[in-house]
Amino acid sequence: MPVTIPSNSVGLITPKILHINNPINLEGGRYLACYDLIYETYGELNADRSNAVLICHALSGDHHAAGYHDINDKKPGWWDVAIGYGKAIDINYFFVVSLNNLGGCKGSTGPNSNNPETHKIYGPDFPIVTVYDWVKTQAALADHLEIMQWAAVIGGSLGGMQALQWAISLPERLRHVLIIAAAPKLSAQNIAFNEVARTAIKSDSDFHNGHYANYNTLPRRGLGLARMLGHITYLSDVAMGKKFGRELRTGKINYGYDIEFQIESYLQHQSSNFVEWFDANTYLLMTKALDYFDPAKDFNNDLIATFAGIKAKSLIVSFTSDWRFSPTRSHEIVNALLSANKYVSYVEIDAHQGHDAFLMPIDRYIKIFQTYMKQVASECSV
Amino acid sequence: MPVTIPSNSVGLITPKILHINNPINLEGGRYLACYDLIYETYGELNADRSNAVLICHALSGDHHAAGYHDINDKKPGWWDVAIGYGKAIDINYFFVVSLNNLGGCKGSTGPNSNNPETHKIYGPDFPIVTVYDWVKTQAALADHLEIMQWAAVIGGSLGGMQALQWAISLPERLRHVLIIAAAPKLSAQNIAFNEVARTAIKSDSDFHNGHYANYNTLPRRGLGLARMLGHITYLSDVAMGKKFGRELRTGKINYGYDIEFQIESYLQHQSSNFVEWFDANTYLLMTKALDYFDPAKDFNNDLIATFAGIKAKSLIVSFTSDWRFSPTRSHEIVNALLSANKYVSYVEIDAHQGHDAFLMPIDRYIKIFQTYMKQVASECSV
Repeated sequence: MPVTIPSNSVGLITPKILHINNPINLEGGRYLACYDLIYETYGELNADRSNAVLICHALSGDHHAAGYHDINDKKPGWWDVAIGYGKAIDINYFFVVSLNNLGGCKGSTGPNSNNPETHKIYGPDFPIVTVYDWVKTQAALADHLEIMQWAAVIGGSLGGMQALQWAISLPERLRHVLIIAAAPKLSAQNIAFNEVARTAIKSDSDFHNGHYANYNTLPRRGLGLARMLGHITYLSDVAMGKKFGRELRTGKINYGYDIEFQIESYLQHQSSNFVEWFDANTYLLMTKALDYFDPAKDFNNDLIATFAGIKAKSLIVSFTSDWRFSPTRSHEIVNALLSANKYVSYVEIDAHQGHDAFLMPIDRYIKIFQTYMKQVASECSV
Repeated sequence: MPVTIPSNSVGLITPKILHINNPINLEGGRYLACYDLIYETYGELNADRSNAVLICHALSGDHHAAGYHDINDKKPGWWDVAIGYGKAIDINYFFVVSLNNLGGCKGSTGPNSNNPETHKIYGPDFPIVTVYDWVKTQAALADHLEIMQWAAVIGGSLGGMQALQWAISLPERLRHVLIIAAAPKLSAQNIAFNEVARTAIKSDSDFHNGHYANYNTLPRRGLGLARMLGHITYLSDVAMGKKFGRELRTGKINYGYDIEFQIESYLQHQSSNFVEWFDANTYLLMTKALDYFDPAKDFNNDLIATFAGIKAKSLIVSFTSDWRFSPTRSHEIVNALLSANKYVSYVEIDAHQGHDAFLMPIDRYIKIFQTYMKQVASECSV
């Protein structure tokens, strides 16, 4: 059944595609002669182009952050709770830009795109792309939109890492940075989970070294496993306990190898859904971008020195039950920003939802987010 | 190079096999007409048979808990740090029994054994076995050894669950119970990790619905993935960080899909090793035994009522960085034992090693373990 589009929604949205003919030299040493970026915008750019906000997406996110593509859509974009009329990112004041990152699978150039040199799809030959590369391509999109300086760059999780990289690499081009549920680099445990996910995908006999498209198949089992595992790390133990506990699927124990508990059923459902809408090579690429993110590596592993050139004011947000990027990881960012004498606000939100909390309408979180963004809006001309 | 066997070791050990012809009715509704249990013993049983200690093993453990099978063995049994002359479980005083559980793959009857009814190996047709079933078979071994009452039943992790089940189900047959790094039942998150492991095994195209032996193959990729994932949950984030951090395998970043970080290399190594010495059907069975363990389910989910009949005195041990079965899970056991007016000692060991800490020679842990066991020994006649 189609939804009734709420009055505070950004409404029906049509994505746009930007074709970029400027070659990009990627951090990993390879280059792309040209590439497409698919993006959406919400709200109106003001006369002096000072009210633009960039949204950076996380691992499985895309350009469709808010509103609806079609009146029959069952749900809105992935961050609709935060973007709309009167919401934290208030479309009454801001012009919001949201894109699918390079290497993605939702319309920007990525492993599933045609390689203009071979006239075949890239598949596994698509180059590794890093957070720094994404910032460069996002800057190319900003150039196209003639946005010289973002009012704010905002992201959660891997999106927060992109926002942080903007503040470090292009300090003149943003006034505020909002880094939510992120970390200054992955821990060994974070990398370990990514490696299990990658191994699951790569060891699926339908993966064919990434050339599954040539075999007219998909590494469903491997990508499904990666997604199941991802879900465990997105939720907290408490959230899973509250939602599923030890509830049985059929109301009784059957003593067999089929699904017994509701949590198993949930994970299997998430897994089989995911492979219908996400590409395995893009999943590998995204996990590698996560692993490689470590801006301090260019500053002798000194995070304070890494932040020395930052000009943006910042809001850092963490969630108590997030064990993927725990509050401790946000403290690393906050402490280094303070030591570098930067303007930083920090809030740790009491929430049981784990890492996924950053996507949820948690009252205190959204209120603080909104209050900060009101301040950002007040600095933009009308 | 062969090791020199230390003087405090239990020394060279030869396992024994007990063939049990008494049929066992299993909790899941099926039965076995007969079965073998492989076991080892260390030390001497005293005249009134009052100094016997039972060791229960965890998911991938077996009967070989201490000492060496051969002078050329590279390492001793899995709990050699705790069992030996002058060690926590002191062979000067105790007669120690350690067995491979029913359903295992190291010599006790399990999926790889011959089914006497079909004259083929059981494979996936081996019945589901629960912690309660294990206690019954361990009691059959005790009967054979004419041990009417254990001085102590001891286990870590899944082994601790067996020890707890002994105290609940056969309260007259043990004087002490030591439950280390365990929980009174799995959480939704624990079950979720098990389900990912099972799905990895079952979705390996070499699994053949568990009949891989008929195809002369092994589900190496699936079982390897299960082991990689297991390892993440056995170690703490801090322990992984201390051991591996973001150290690179080749000293530089290569921007590709091969292994970059030492932690990835370690997990892949653990994975490829494991499939050489562990059976996939047994792995599935062990994770199911974990999922099903919930002694309070027979007492209207009331843990205090579950513990009402316990006669054994208990020592409960947890480790601060264990996130598989965190100290909170031990508190659940301790609080219910206290509410049931039972004799309980509890210690939370400050350790960064995560769940695996229970296998490690951590000074304070071993000292407390030893002190408790000295008290147990003092109650046995000489």
